[in-house]
Amino acid sequence: MRMICLDLEGVLIPEIWVGLADASGIDELRATTRDVGDYDALMHMRLELLKRHGLGMIELQQVINNMAPLPGAAAFLERLRSRFQLAIVSDTFYELAAPLMHQLGQPLLLCHHLMLDNKGCISGYRLRQKQPKLHAVRAFQSMDYQVFAAGDSLNDIDMLCSADYGVFFRAPAAVHAQYSQFPATQEYDELWQLFCESDR
Amino acid sequence: MRMICLDLEGVLIPEIWVGLADASGIDELRATTRDVGDYDALMHMRLELLKRHGLGMIELQQVINNMAPLPGAAAFLERLRSRFQLAIVSDTFYELAAPLMHQLGQPLLLCHHLMLDNKGCISGYRLRQKQPKLHAVRAFQSMDYQVFAAGDSLNDIDMLCSADYGVFFRAPAAVHAQYSQFPATQEYDELWQLFCESDR
Repeated sequence: MRMICLDLEGVLIPEIWVGLADASGIDELRATTRDVGDYDALMHMRLELLKRHGLGMIELQQVINNMAPLPGAAAFLERLRSRFQLAIVSDTFYELAAPLMHQLGQPLLLCHHLMLDNKGCISGYRLRQKQPKLHAVRAFQSMDYQVFAAGDSLNDIDMLCSADYGVFFRAPAAVHAQYSQFPATQEYDELWQLFCESDR
Repeated sequence: MRMICLDLEGVLIPEIWVGLADASGIDELRATTRDVGDYDALMHMRLELLKRHGLGMIELQQVINNMAPLPGAAAFLERLRSRFQLAIVSDTFYELAAPLMHQLGQPLLLCHHLMLDNKGCISGYRLRQKQPKLHAVRAFQSMDYQVFAAGDSLNDIDMLCSADYGVFFRAPAAVHAQYSQFPATQEYDELWQLFCESDR
């Protein structure tokens, strides 16, 4: 029995923080987990930038409400879910991803929470656990599922390593070069084919 | 962070095997996990009955394609998924439940597979693991989710016991009397209220 674990940003939706950088003009918000392996350091930097520029949850949601999944992502998920069970395993936050998940047909999302103060400012964040992607794979394996996983970033490596079958999707060349044991795909059709070929 | 684990048959959809009994006139197919605690014994009996009456997968699917979720179930799930993450944890089979899951908006389903021979006859079934509902709760807890669970049957007891919060939904009085530590609900609104009150 198979469970597909997919990364979210860069795989199904645009990088949310890049979208926020574009909309706000704050160029330092452009860094993602593709660039910085230490997620805690990355989030500290992001929240510090938001605070310094006076951006709260309302401003972020205005930007995110205008974002859309990557072209073809919703149809790809519909196809996947006709054959496999699916979990989205992401280092994003429920509060940011909600409108996009709605557009993707509300698949299961395993991620983190932002903490808001009573003025609606982001006061911090709570990572659900350390190595959440690794633990997600192990949790499904503990239920006797074979896990097929795909991601694009450094924070996906432990998910790809622990999965029964791991694939890169649109990973930067430098990341793929470093972990060349995983096949690299660029299009949803390729990824679908690889998952189906492994489902024998 | 909260994960809702819901039983399927009797909670969101009618009992599939009762529907098959109604359509086929085979009255012995009416027994469910509400009546028989030993699921393996129950399934052996069901498959033996199907074989004896010459019913295969095509006949079963014709019946199931005409079934619908319980009144209000789809709207209840939509509401739940706007606030919580959701997993359906069931002792049904993917091959039987598929058309009904589609009508419920394709939530994550953790259940079992039927085995089909090359004539499309059901040759057997593969239970994913022993105590699958218990393992599902533990798997989500291993990802640091608090699990709120609801079910109606004897096969839900270990899920309700291991969950951080367990509730009966439309359980027979005899089952509730035996496990009176769990609150009993009859309507989706009540269940929603209890989940929200526990989400503090």
